[in-house]
Formats: sequence, C-alpha cells, structure tokens
Amino acid sequence: MNPVNLELAAGLVDRAYIKQGGQARASREKMVRALLANRKLPEQGWDDQSIEFFLSELAMMDSNNFLGNIGVGEREGRVWSDLVARRHYRLSHGIGRSGDVQAVQPKAAGSSLLLKICTLMALDALQTAGLTETKGCLLLPVATGMAHVLTFLHLRSLRPKGRYVVWPRIDQQTCFKAIFTAGLVPLVVENQLEGQELRTDMKALQAAIASVGPDQILCVLSTSSCFAPRAPDRLEEIARLCKDLDVPHVVNNAYGVQCSAVCKLLSRAMRVGRVDAFIQSMDKNFMVPIGGAIVAGNNAKWLDGLAKSYPGRASASPILDLLCTLLSLGRAGWIRLLKEREENFVFLQESLSRLVQKDSHTATGDLCADLDKEQVLATPHNHISMALSLTSFGMSQDKRKGYTYLGSMLFSRNTSGPRVVDPSSVKTVAGVEFQGYSAHCNQYSVPYITIACAIGMTRSEGEQFLDRLQKCVLEFRKKQRAEGPGPTLHES
Amino acid sequence: MNPVNLELAAGLVDRAYIKQGGQARASREKMVRALLANRKLPEQGWDDQSIEFFLSELAMMDSNNFLGNIGVGEREGRVWSDLVARRHYRLSHGIGRSGDVQAVQPKAAGSSLLLKICTLMALDALQTAGLTETKGCLLLPVATGMAHVLTFLHLRSLRPKGRYVVWPRIDQQTCFKAIFTAGLVPLVVENQLEGQELRTDMKALQAAIASVGPDQILCVLSTSSCFAPRAPDRLEEIARLCKDLDVPHVVNNAYGVQCSAVCKLLSRAMRVGRVDAFIQSMDKNFMVPIGGAIVAGNNAKWLDGLAKSYPGRASASPILDLLCTLLSLGRAGWIRLLKEREENFVFLQESLSRLVQKDSHTATGDLCADLDKEQVLATPHNHISMALSLTSFGMSQDKRKGYTYLGSMLFSRNTSGPRVVDPSSVKTVAGVEFQGYSAHCNQYSVPYITIACAIGMTRSEGEQFLDRLQKCVLEFRKKQRAEGPGPTLHES
Amino acid sequence: MNPVNLELAAGLVDRAYIKQGGQARASREKMVRALLANRKLPEQGWDDQSIEFFLSELAMMDSNNFLGNIGVGEREGRVWSDLVARRHYRLSHGIGRSGDVQAVQPKAAGSSLLLKICTLMALDALQTAGLTETKGCLLLPVATGMAHVLTFLHLRSLRPKGRYVVWPRIDQQTCFKAIFTAGLVPLVVENQLEGQELRTDMKALQAAIASVGPDQILCVLSTSSCFAPRAPDRLEEIARLCKDLDVPHVVNNAYGVQCSAVCKLLSRAMRVGRVDAFIQSMDKNFMVPIGGAIVAGNNAKWLDGLAKSYPGRASASPILDLLCTLLSLGRAGWIRLLKEREENFVFLQESLSRLVQKDSHTATGDLCADLDKEQVLATPHNHISMALSLTSFGMSQDKRKGYTYLGSMLFSRNTSGPRVVDPSSVKTVAGVEFQGYSAHCNQYSVPYITIACAIGMTRSEGEQFLDRLQKCVLEFRKKQRAEGPGPTLHES
Amino acid sequence: MNPVNLELAAGLVDRAYIKQGGQARASREKMVRALLANRKLPEQGWDDQSIEFFLSELAMMDSNNFLGNIGVGEREGRVWSDLVARRHYRLSHGIGRSGDVQAVQPKAAGSSLLLKICTLMALDALQTAGLTETKGCLLLPVATGMAHVLTFLHLRSLRPKGRYVVWPRIDQQTCFKAIFTAGLVPLVVENQLEGQELRTDMKALQAAIASVGPDQILCVLSTSSCFAPRAPDRLEEIARLCKDLDVPHVVNNAYGVQCSAVCKLLSRAMRVGRVDAFIQSMDKNFMVPIGGAIVAGNNAKWLDGLAKSYPGRASASPILDLLCTLLSLGRAGWIRLLKEREENFVFLQESLSRLVQKDSHTATGDLCADLDKEQVLATPHNHISMALSLTSFGMSQDKRKGYTYLGSMLFSRNTSGPRVVDPSSVKTVAGVEFQGYSAHCNQYSVPYITIACAIGMTRSEGEQFLDRLQKCVLEFRKKQRAEGPGPTLHES
Repeated sequence: MNPVNLELAAGLVDRAYIKQGGQARASREKMVRALLANRKLPEQGWDDQSIEFFLSELAMMDSNNFLGNIGVGEREGRVWSDLVARRHYRLSHGIGRSGDVQAVQPKAAGSSLLLKICTLMALDALQTAGLTETKGCLLLPVATGMAHVLTFLHLRSLRPKGRYVVWPRIDQQTCFKAIFTAGLVPLVVENQLEGQELRTDMKALQAAIASVGPDQILCVLSTSSCFAPRAPDRLEEIARLCKDLDVPHVVNNAYGVQCSAVCKLLSRAMRVGRVDAFIQSMDKNFMVPIGGAIVAGNNAKWLDGLAKSYPGRASASPILDLLCTLLSLGRAGWIRLLKEREENFVFLQESLSRLVQKDSHTATGDLCADLDKEQVLATPHNHISMALSLTSFGMSQDKRKGYTYLGSMLFSRNTSGPRVVDPSSVKTVAGVEFQGYSAHCNQYSVPYITIACAIGMTRSEGEQFLDRLQKCVLEFRKKQRAEGPGPTLHES
Repeated sequence: MNPVNLELAAGLVDRAYIKQGGQARASREKMVRALLANRKLPEQGWDDQSIEFFLSELAMMDSNNFLGNIGVGEREGRVWSDLVARRHYRLSHGIGRSGDVQAVQPKAAGSSLLLKICTLMALDALQTAGLTETKGCLLLPVATGMAHVLTFLHLRSLRPKGRYVVWPRIDQQTCFKAIFTAGLVPLVVENQLEGQELRTDMKALQAAIASVGPDQILCVLSTSSCFAPRAPDRLEEIARLCKDLDVPHVVNNAYGVQCSAVCKLLSRAMRVGRVDAFIQSMDKNFMVPIGGAIVAGNNAKWLDGLAKSYPGRASASPILDLLCTLLSLGRAGWIRLLKEREENFVFLQESLSRLVQKDSHTATGDLCADLDKEQVLATPHNHISMALSLTSFGMSQDKRKGYTYLGSMLFSRNTSGPRVVDPSSVKTVAGVEFQGYSAHCNQYSVPYITIACAIGMTRSEGEQFLDRLQKCVLEFRKKQRAEGPGPTLHES
Repeated sequence: MNPVNLELAAGLVDRAYIKQGGQARASREKMVRALLANRKLPEQGWDDQSIEFFLSELAMMDSNNFLGNIGVGEREGRVWSDLVARRHYRLSHGIGRSGDVQAVQPKAAGSSLLLKICTLMALDALQTAGLTETKGCLLLPVATGMAHVLTFLHLRSLRPKGRYVVWPRIDQQTCFKAIFTAGLVPLVVENQLEGQELRTDMKALQAAIASVGPDQILCVLSTSSCFAPRAPDRLEEIARLCKDLDVPHVVNNAYGVQCSAVCKLLSRAMRVGRVDAFIQSMDKNFMVPIGGAIVAGNNAKWLDGLAKSYPGRASASPILDLLCTLLSLGRAGWIRLLKEREENFVFLQESLSRLVQKDSHTATGDLCADLDKEQVLATPHNHISMALSLTSFGMSQDKRKGYTYLGSMLFSRNTSGPRVVDPSSVKTVAGVEFQGYSAHCNQYSVPYITIACAIGMTRSEGEQFLDRLQKCVLEFRKKQRAEGPGPTLHES
Repeated sequence: MNPVNLELAAGLVDRAYIKQGGQARASREKMVRALLANRKLPEQGWDDQSIEFFLSELAMMDSNNFLGNIGVGEREGRVWSDLVARRHYRLSHGIGRSGDVQAVQPKAAGSSLLLKICTLMALDALQTAGLTETKGCLLLPVATGMAHVLTFLHLRSLRPKGRYVVWPRIDQQTCFKAIFTAGLVPLVVENQLEGQELRTDMKALQAAIASVGPDQILCVLSTSSCFAPRAPDRLEEIARLCKDLDVPHVVNNAYGVQCSAVCKLLSRAMRVGRVDAFIQSMDKNFMVPIGGAIVAGNNAKWLDGLAKSYPGRASASPILDLLCTLLSLGRAGWIRLLKEREENFVFLQESLSRLVQKDSHTATGDLCADLDKEQVLATPHNHISMALSLTSFGMSQDKRKGYTYLGSMLFSRNTSGPRVVDPSSVKTVAGVEFQGYSAHCNQYSVPYITIACAIGMTRSEGEQFLDRLQKCVLEFRKKQRAEGPGPTLHES
C-alpha cells in the first residue's frame, strides 16, 4: 500500500482508520529500512509476519516473478510444483553467478539482496558471539565437510606446492575425509593427555611440519569445538607457529560459535598469530536444517578469492533459512540463546558431578548410589561437552557389552546425542587405521559416555536427560546384579 | 520496499537491478491501485503471490498486528494458535460492528477494506453473470438457509402484520425450515405439470395470497434454481403479481448465478415487477467452502436495512474465501467458468439423449441397449439440472429396490451428486407431510435419476459420469436378468 | 505408513531405523486414539505437526478429496482457489445438514468427525473452567449476537406466546439489538447502585415480569460478563425467580468462561434455579478469530432442539479454529491460561490502586502525583474488568474534552481496549434512548476509564499499559496546566 | 487413522461414512505402497495433498520430530524458526553421513527414505527421457559446477596421474572454472565449423590427448547441451576414442535430459564407447530452484565411490524439491512436458524461419520486411537452442552498438534469456583469454541472437517472444533510419 493506494482506500474506509493502518504498515517498512541502513542484526527479532512480508518483497524483485515476464533461455527460474515454489517463497534463482558465488544476479535482484543482507547479519552474529576479529564471512550452501574441501582447494590454488594437511587428531570423520576428497595427504598429530583431558601436542605438531618442510604443508587444520575429553586445540600456539613458519592455518570451528570461550580463544589466535579461515556449521550454531557453512576470517580479500573459486551457481535455501533465523532472533534473541547455553552447560556439569558424589543420595534416594565409582572427567578447556566415566558398567560375559547396553537403553528412550566410547575400538577411516577411535587417542584410560550441551537445548531437556540416565543406570544395575559385573572396566 | 528502502538496497546490489526489481514491485501495486480505483473485478485474475501479498498488506492494517500494540479490552483479536493465525492471514477481527454487519471497524481497517472490496467485486460478478438489475449486495457469513431467516426477520420488522410465506413447493428442506425458524407459517403452493416439467401454478399462488389476504403475507418465496423435472418458478409473473398486490417477493436463487438463463429470468422479473431480494449461495456459485451467502437486490437502501438488522460482529472467513476466489478468477476467469458450465450442460444433455436412443447402439455396443425404454425428461426451462427416467429398473421382489440399488452402485463408485427419486415416497419436514417428496409434487409419473451440471464440473467429469452410469446399468441388467424385472415401474 | 508400507520401506532403509520411525509414527496415532476414546481435551497440548497431520487425515475422509471422485450434483465441495483450499486444510463441506447443524454429513465423514470431537472438547473446556453443571453445548459458526437471535427464535417456537425479553440493562449494543432482530420487545430493567458498583435490581426485574405477566415473557436475558463498574447480574436470584415463575432464563456469558468467579456464579444459578441456556463467544474466551459462539446448558435435549432449528448447512471455519486451539492448548494449557488471567487481574488491580495512592510517589517519582484525586472504583463482583475515575481531567472550555483527550492519547499510542465513559452521554439504540449510555445507568456519579484483563493478555501488556497510562497523564497535566482545568468533573 | 482409530471414530460418526472415508484414506496409502514397491515414478502424478501427507509421514520418522525426544548431542536437528521448520516440512537432518552422502542416517529414517525414493524416481525419469543406458544416479545438493568439481576430485583419487582435462570449447564459464577449482589444467580444443554449426574437432581432440599422453589426462569433458550455433559434441566418437585410449570421459549434460536427441546421442555413446559419468542440472531439467545436480552413469559402483568421497552431510532441500516435482509430475506428466518442449522447439524454429522469409510480409505487414537480410543459422544438431543472425543491425557510430541495443530492448520488455553475441568480443576466464567469447570459437562469421526452447516454456511464451521481437525490430529500424546503418556487420 503506497500513498496512492492508501488514498484510494480512504475512499472506501474512513480515512482516520486507513491512516492508522498506513502508519502501522509504515512501521514495518521502517524495520526494513533499519536493516538495510544498519546492515546488522536487528536489535529485536522480527515477528514471522514481518519476515514473510520481507521475503515476498524480495521474491517480487526476481525476474521469474515479474508480471508478464517471458523466458527464452535455458534457466529461467521456472518451478513446476506449487509446493516447491511456495516453500521457497518463490525465490528460485539460487545465489551467485558462474564467476562468483557471492556475485549479484541480474535476473534476481531479490535473491542477490537476500544474500548480501544475510552475509552482513551473519558477520554481525559472529562478532556478537565473541569472534571480534572477524572481518568478513562467506555463506556457503554446503555443509562443513564440503566447506573444508573448498577451502583446501582454494588454498591449493594459492600455494601449489602444498600437499599435506597437518591435523591434530579429532575423531570425527568428515574433516578427515575432506582432506582426502581435496586430494591431499593428512599428517596426523596425536593428542597429549593433560590430566584427563586431551590437548594439542605442540611438539609433535611442529615435528610434523618439519617432517616434510613448511613449503609442502598446505595448512594446519586445527579444531576448536569437540567432544570431551578432548579439548579445543591450542589455537594461539598453533597460530603463532603458523605465522612464524608462514604456513596457512584453517580452524574447524564447526560448532564453536555458540561458545564464548571458543570465540575468545579463536579471537586471540587471530590477534597473535595466523588464521587464514575458520569454518562453522550453520545448522550446529544457528539451528537451521543441515546444509550450510560459514567460512570466516580476518582477511576479506582472501574470502573474496574463495568466493570466486566457487564454480557456478548454488542453492539459496540454506541462506534463506539463516536469514529467517537471524531476523527472527535479532541481536537480543541471539545473545539470550548464547547465554542460556552457557547456563545450561554449568547446570548439566554440576548436576552430573552431584550424581557421582556420595552425598547426593539423600536428594535422589538410592537411585544412583551405584554411580559413586564414576567421575565426571576433568576437561576444564571444553565448555560445550562433558564426559562421565563408565568403569563400573561391565558385564560378566563381555565387558564391553555393558556400556554399549547402557547406550542402547538411552537410545530406546528417545535420548539422542550421548555417545558411549570404548577406548579399545579400532576403525579405519579413508584408509587410515585409528586405535581407540572415538576417544581421540590411541588408548584412553576409561570407557565413558560423552554428551554436549549445545545451543537450543533447553533446561528441561537437561533435566529429563539426568532423569532418564538415572533410570537407565538403575535398570542396568538390576540386570548387572543378575548377570554379574565382570572385571572392572578400567583394568582392561 | 518504498523508494527509501529501494535506494538503500541499491547500496548493496547494483542499482540497475534494484530499479528493475522495484518496477516489478510497482507493477503489483498498480494492480492494487486498479482494484481500489475501479472497484470491480480485475479484468485478468491475479496470481496467488499477488493475492497473498495484498492480504498481508490488509492484515498489517489491523490493530492486532500493529507492532507494539497492547490490548486491555475484552476483544483484541488475539489468536492463540499459530496455525489459526496463519490460515486467516492474521486477520482476526471479523467483520462488522454491533450496529451493522457492513460497518467499518476502527480496530480493523484492513478487514474493513477487505469487506468493502469484496462486496464491490461480488456485485460486479453478479452483474457480469447477467443479473444486470442488481444495485447492491450484502455478503453474509452464513449459508443460504440462515440468510433466508435474516431476510424474513428483516421483512417482518418492516411489515409487522406479515405472518405467512407463500411458497411454491420445492423439495429442498433448508428454505422450508427457514420459514419456521423465523417463526412464520408457510402457505404451500403445489406445482403444475406442463408436459414432463413442473412449473409454478399461478392461479394456486394467487389463491394462496387471497386465502389470508395480502396484508398478512410476509412475502412470496420463489425459487429460481432447482432440480429437474422442476423448472425455475415463473418469476416474472410472480413479480408482477407481488407488485400489483404490494406483497414482498424474495427469490431463493441458491445456485442460479451460474446460469445465464436464470439470471435473465430474474433480471426481467426485477424490471417488470417486484423483487425485494434474491439470495444466493457463495459456495454453490463461487466454489468456496460452505459458509456464506449473498443477499442482493435492486434497492440498496433495503439492503442497508438488512445489514443494520444483523446484531453484532461476524466471521470474515467466508468473505476472505470469496475475495481470494474473485481476485484469482478475475472477470475473464469468471466468464470462462460460466461459459464452460453452459457448454458442459449441453454436452451432458445431448450425451444422455444419445444414450437412450436406439441408434446409439452402434457407438456403445450392446452396453446400453436396455436404456431404450427410458427418456431424458423434457424440462426445457431448467438449464442446470436434467433427469433420466428409470421405468425399466424394477426388480422382482420390491420394485423400488431397483433404482435405489442403481443409486448405491453409483455412490460406491465415487460418483457423488446424482439423486434417485421415487415418486411414491412420503416425508415430513418441520411437521408438514409431503407426498412424493423429492419430486416436488404429490405424484410424479415415473421414477428418475436427476443430476446437475454445476459450475466447476469439468468436461472430463461429465464423460466419466456417462461411462460409470453405463457400466452400472450393464451390471444392473445382469442382476435384473437373474432376479427378474418385476412389474414395470411406471404402472405403480 | 501402515505396516505394509513400513515393511516396504524397510527394503530401502535399514529395518531398525524404519522400525523406530514407525514407532514414532505410532505414538502420534496413539494421541488420536486417546482423543477419540476419551472424548475430552488431551491432557497435554498437541504440537502443530500433530494437529496438521490429524486435519489432513480428516480431510482425506471428505468426498471432495476422494481420489477419482466425480461430482454431478450442485454442491460438491469444489474449491476454485488453491489458497482457499489450503487454508481450510481442504475441508470444504462445512457442517450440518438441512435438518440439523450438528448432523453428520454423508459426503463428509471427516468434517462430521471434526465437529463431534470439537464439541466434546469444548464441553470439557467449559466444565474445566468451572461450568460444572454443563451437560451439553452447541458450537455455532455465528458470533454471540446471532447466537442470541437463534436462541430467542428457538424459545419462541417452544413458547409461542412469549413476546418480551426482560433485560437488566447492560450498555452493549449487540445483545439489545438481537432482541429486536428476533422480532421481540425488550423490557429494560435499570441497574441499582450498590456503593460504586451497579447490580441487578431484583425488585424492578420482578415488576417488569409482572407488568405483562410471565406468560408473555419469552425469557429473562441476564448478563454475567461486563465492564466495571457494572457487576455480573445476580444470576442465582434471577434463576430462582425464573424457576418459580416458569419463565425461561438465558445468560449472556459472552466472555465469562475465562473467569472462575463467573463460572461459579453461573453454576450455582443452574443448581438452584433455571437457566435454559448460556451463550459465550468463541473468540473472547478461546482466542480464535471472530465468528463462533457456544450455546451451552444443562439440558442436552433442549440444545438438540436448537440445533435442529438451524436451517441448512454452516461454515466449519470457526469450528476448525476452535479445534486447532483446544488441541494446541490441551487441558494443561487451558488451565494455565485461565490461571494467568486471574493473576494478571490481581496484578493490574493492585497496580492501579497503588497509582492513585499518595505513597506511590516514591516508586514512580512525581509522575503520577496528580492521580491522587482519583480512585479505582470499588467493584468487588467484577473479576474481569476495573475502572478508574477521571474526576480531575476537566479542561477549561469543555469539561468533557479532557477525558476524551486522554482516551485518544492512549489510542494513538497503540493501546487498544480502554474506554473512557462520560456519564452524561445519551444514545439511541434500536430506537430506544438511553441516558448515560456506556455507564449502564442513567446517571453515574463520575466519568471514568474502564479496562479489562482478558484471557491472553500478558503480564508485560499490563505493565506497558500502566506505563503508557502514566505517561499520558503526565502529558495531559502539562496541557491542562496550560489551558486551565475547568470545573471539576464530578460536579457536573 | 489406523483401523483402531477408525473404529473409535465410528463411535462418533455413522460407521458407513467412516468406512467410506477410511477407504479413501486407504487409497492414498496404496499410492505410497505402489511407490515403495515399484521404486519408480508413479504412472500418474500425485496431487499436492498426497505429496504433503507423504512428506509429513516421512518427517514423523525423523528423530527431531519424535514426541518426547531429548537431545544431548551437538547436532539434533533443532530448528529455531517456525517458518524454517515449516518450509522444510520439519525435515532438518539433511542427507548422508560423514562417510557417504547416500548413507542412511540412524537419526533420520524419514529423510533417508526420502533420498532413496527420490534417487529411484530420478533414475526412472532419466531412463524415461531416453537415457536408457543409465544404471545408477547420485543426487547431489550442489549445482552442476560443483558436481563437476566433485566428479573430477573422485576421478583424481582413482587416477592420481591425471592432471589435464581435455575440453572441447564451450563458452560457458562454470564448467571451465570447475576444472581450475579442482586444481586441474584444461586442454582447450577449438571447435570446427561445419556449415554454420560448430562441432567437435576430433583430430584436434586426439592431438590434445597425445600432447601430454593419455596417462596424464584425467578425463575428456564433453558437452551435450549448448547454445546454437554450437552443436552437442560428437559424443559417440569421443566415447570410442576414450575407450580405445583408456581415458575417462565425463559428459556435461547440463540441460540435455529434456531433449530426446541428446539422450539418444548420449545413450549411443555409452553403448559404443566410454562414458564414466554424465552430469545434469536438477533445475534446468526438472524445474526446481537452483541447487542440485544429478551425476549418472552406467556403472553403479563408480557412482557409489563418488558418493563415498563426499565428506559429511548435505542439504536435503534440493532433494525434497525434486521429490515433490517428480511425484507431482508422475511418468505421464514428465512425458507430456518433454513432448511439449519438442513441439515448442519446432514451432519456434519454424516461426523464426518464416519471419526472415520475404513472403512473410503479407502476414505480418511491413513489420519485419527488414529481417529478410537475416537467417536462422543452420544448426541441425542442436534441438534445444537456435540462433538468428543480426547482420543488418549496425548503427552509424559504433557497429556493435546496434545489436547490443536490440538485446537491451528485449530485456526492458521483460524478455529474459535471449543472448546477443558479438563474435569479436574477448574475455578472460580463470586466467585464459578467449577470442570471440560467447560464440564458442575465435571468429564466428556473424553477430547473432540465440535463444533456447527449454522445458517448461509454454507455447504462449514462444508466441509472445516472436511478437516482442518483431516490435523491437520495428522500433530499432526507426532508430536506425534516423542514425544511419553504418557498415554491414558481417564485413567486419
């Protein structure tokens, strides 16, 4: 309703009411104006009505939605299924052009604007979370694994001699496989045990670089978010080393944005040393469906180069999801989510600690008496994940059967996420055999169960988890008493 | 995107593309402008994207959607369920005020505008369909039965002595019950057989009025759309009589808008005599879900009086449906639908006639040989519905069993709509016993099956009906041969 | 996914995962099962996904959605616009049949089931709210005004001599107009001042009945929810009187369901005396868009009679809204909403009281010093609405200008709902002139502003209201000091 | 509604109607059953209601939608924004696992099933279109450019010595850039002019291979769909050569699926020689939003290898779009779309030919008299695109200005897709300079405008294009007459 239409409307409905309605309409346009002018997260989240209105405004600016448009090309944004058109808000042109995944599309001003705004908001969200050194970011409609591949390939074009990726071990397949997909060779650096926590072995890392010479190193791939008892890598020390040796440094920050400690660590690393890029998952940090990653860094030009190395167009779908989410959250909502996660982490860690203390019996009755042989592993550097030892969960015939069984009990009670880790397991990934796979080291001392307190987890979910865990242990103990406990597990 | 926002967008995406997008955006605003300025059906139907955009514009003008609105009243348009809010496009204030169902609502400029525009388009749609004398219409969010009640009650307030409704018989319960609901007394006028067609008996109608005196007659309630072999009432003659005797005349035009012959008949009646109001179903004429009626006439003041007699607010939902439909159709789509219906009627009537002719055997094989004892009843004044006699469908034990069985065969083959009529049935409606109920007269000569060719029926549906009918007859004949035909039915 | 399909799926995806998915699927079917078996509100509200799934199940059971269905009738549930079909979840047959608005429709098993279940849940919701004597209810897709008309018309058919409706005055137009729409004559009973509260004058009411004789009284129409300073009527005493005199009694319980005090009062009235029916708004009590009413009572047969008096079909749209809302709330959500309303009422009343006390200055600064001449009117029987006197809000030229101006200040600050009442206004409704209209009596002692604490109002809305009110008063005082206060208002 | 629930429903609504509704319900389950059992496109397309119902069934099988599920992992499919959840039908887990983009996800049986079924339908769609040799296909949620990169990277892992990609020139940036992105080196093979058509120069291609030796060739990348006057590559001869030399062969079949001639050509190539994989765009062939590609071939194992080389999870969004589209089309709809495209191609080609003939003057008046110096370029092997020479479109000052201006005239008339090609332009792509860029050869003889008749283009679009083209030419000639024509263009 532009002024002309409002004036016409005032011929049908009392002018005073139309005027008030028009003002309300205008207040939403002001929200859009503030967004376009500030180029940041809105302070307060938008309501869904405003978001959808904005999306329909954008869609009307794409040529496939022009009234009277005819297409005689091979790619005209035509959509057969109305269900599909609707679910994309009639945005069908994707993002990017053959030359650059960030490029503006002449046929799709709306989609282009969507990408620009979303990129600016995402940058603000990263900075707000604590990644204060971030100077630019690139939204890629591929998940973190492929974002690693693209980053490696771009690095390769800049550093043609680089063949090796130095990789402090983390038992997560995707990042390791990405090295191979890009045609590169990993140099695995085993972790160092510090108390019960696994941390980067800087000497081994340095030795790995030296083993082939810095020139042949494409990059060091460090990890900032991981499952306990592994800690985030020593990013500062790695960054300093990379700076000194002129070796690129990529940080797999998959779900680290949600954690202020990780953000601080990463920011310090950028300040004191070299970080070429850090890569994060859209879904793990921003609660969108799987499908997008953000590559960020403090060198906007480097990121432009990466954008230009992407061949052809790409799906706008993950960008659209992120846009909706960031508009819906606003800065206030984003900060609140981050804060709640940290509070829930403390709550969960303290609750677990209480469970394994003897004096918790009063509160919880006899229920968990039998957890007093266990401990919450001391992993002071990990602020997302925590682990509980499972030394007393053996069973007579097959000692491993015990904790596996506990895991399946939780699974069948609709508890997703906890992982039971057997330190003696062996697994081959991309042709490389790993001892103690899942435990991030060859021989961790105890079996354990590890959980994460991720963004979006509610306090109530935490409470229910504690409740279900206790019920499972109780049931387990019954079964164990019937079958006999077998040898204690940590003796293995 | 107002000019200010477009200018800001041009700071993010090339100005030329933003400009083109802005022009596309503007072309949709021009559609709204034309609608508000012309106050008629758009010439061409709108696409769904434009309709939804317009609806969201309207919704933003209602106070329940004002940003920062707080409510401390008892009726603030709050909606609990997001599903509900979404399906109403966040329009929740309904229509009307305590004083008038057409009144503008201060809290809801958008909903008020919606009602005004929809009323103007509906008026245009009626006129376009051939109801050229129509000067105004009232959109009521109640179905035709209740619209009749409201019309009667309004007439009563204008004509306090009126107690009787003169009613040429039509075997449809709703309109008859509406007379009782309004606390009135029907004077039933039996129909006259003219060939095989049932038509208004004007002498009997005149006698009915005379029996209590015109002063005590609230109105004559005639019917313009009905199932064959009944014809629409002799509207012109009734209208003339009502004018002469100063008796109000209401026309039950339930599904007559879709038929140009009915529209012409009704228009002539308005020109030559008296028609206070005619009432039509929204769903039967405009293919919306059940729930709305349109009361129209050539006296806008009379209609305003009716609007003002409606106590309190009302649902906007049927109005919203009609708005979407009329915008989606446009004048061109509406005319096309009307034309297709008339073509399909001719096709169906001709096809049925061919089925009962002996020389159709070549085309259809032996399949329908056994329909040659039947005929398509001659009902030259009915252009919506037609009837096929079923004299040869008796069965040995119970002659009625036959055609009832044919009906159920069609029903179980997912054919909805055909009605098998047994002229000997008796039914009591609202305490009044009717002989030959469903046949619109005490003793129609033959049993028959009646069908309608209504708006929205596709040619393909017609063809499939003919096909299923033939298959059912074939199957029926097999069964009949096994059981024996019994006495021929028309001898009863 | 029935077992056969799940088995086929297990040929494509690991059986174990399909099995778990099938169990999850089954858990939703169990929710439906519990609903159909218990015939009550679910204990916990359903998520939107479950509600939509259930609705699509229902829709598939309506003939317009049968695969391969063809229609040759005049009413086949065809929907032209896909937008319209979608927003009704493809349910288009409405509710009821010509004979009965509650009747099952052969063509629409799904819609019929929807109505039955929703009716049962609504009954449970009424009982849960405290209307414990309720034995049945009828969901009508018309708002409260028309529900009153239908109730009156039904009573009229049962009590043909009844011409008068005895009506303790409430200054709300709809219910008063409904009397006229139904062709009846109101006997207005003025209220009695009890302190600052307006209450039913039982003697006057008795006199009104006697004036024409109980036989000619169609019913007493009492009111249980209203704006302060009027109190709900003395329902018990009226019910007793009606029982004694054999006069029907209808309670306009428009927004009373949300208030436990009203529910208790109404329940007691039903126990000790006569209440034929009580009528409530769907939108005001259940936060759905305007368009539906519930007529309830303790005589299921009486309600069946009312259902059978409704001529023809009706919109299912308000029923669908109510169904979604009740499923979404569940019993727990419904009880929580009711509880929050009562808490907010207390909060708002106490906060207002504090504002007019001198010792509130510390807390609020000088801001409201000037409210110390005002008082919160003492209306101990009204638990939904409250009123604040405005005696010190005169202005020099026109003493009424003052409080009107205050009202418009609030309105322009997006505060909807508060009503400023001038006890000297006069208004004619349906031809009857009322002195002091809006104040429920001929001459209330002071002007005042009245607000309601209705269901769905949040605590935050209450706080913002108090804040905006104070700001408006402050601004008003500035203006007043500039213009001069004029005579104090209560001297008028 | 399983049998238990239907039985309960029959306690509320007449059993007969519930039974019929249940049968209708069952008929939709039979559609799902047929889909899961046949593992092919359904013969007839599904209606949207069935598709959405199926999607909600799938969603309920994913753990993020389990009732009572709690998550204590870092990736739980949580979705913040309801808008986002809804538009993905609450499917949020994406596809694939760290090891394999086709792998079943334990947490997401529904998403896994979706991928399997969609893959099977896509395979059927390819075969139906004429790609009869296809034995398997892989759905990738990246567009064609990235699909090329992944294919190259996989080939590289199988053929570590392969560094060069032999590439018959096609002036489309994406595929060329993909070679660089993958870290490879292109060997450009210029095209051969055959009449006015550009075709593969087999000798040059053979020479290119020989220049570095077959061992160092990663693959030949041929192109089967392109803009006239280039023809699809000589796939058979290339395939034979690759087979002989043991060199991999990848076909860029971007929008070739829609063309039966291309499908036949590609199928013959697979029969007689070597094709490792052919890559097609989802959006260009199946009318979905940009974002997906299908890699197909006759070696299912090879494709499995490619799937396993994809690191990590991926977006399900493009797969969901394809699923909806294929279900909506069904085999019948898919065949109809393909047929319409071929008919429209013939219509457009014939119409253009008529425009440039002198004897068309009578029909079109003087309008196009001035096109008689132009010709439709003879490109008998291209059945998707066609080109019209523009030799008479020079202008006085700058001869190129002419046809550029024609292009912009079309653009500003909302005609998207036509490309005006200036054979003298030069462009550098990925560091390589191309003469005559856009014309696929160093020096094409004439400037021309090229258009495509792609799937989904309607006959009406074709007609409107012809109309707008003529109007633009007419307007152009006016301007040209005013400015003077300049030298004829082909003399340059």
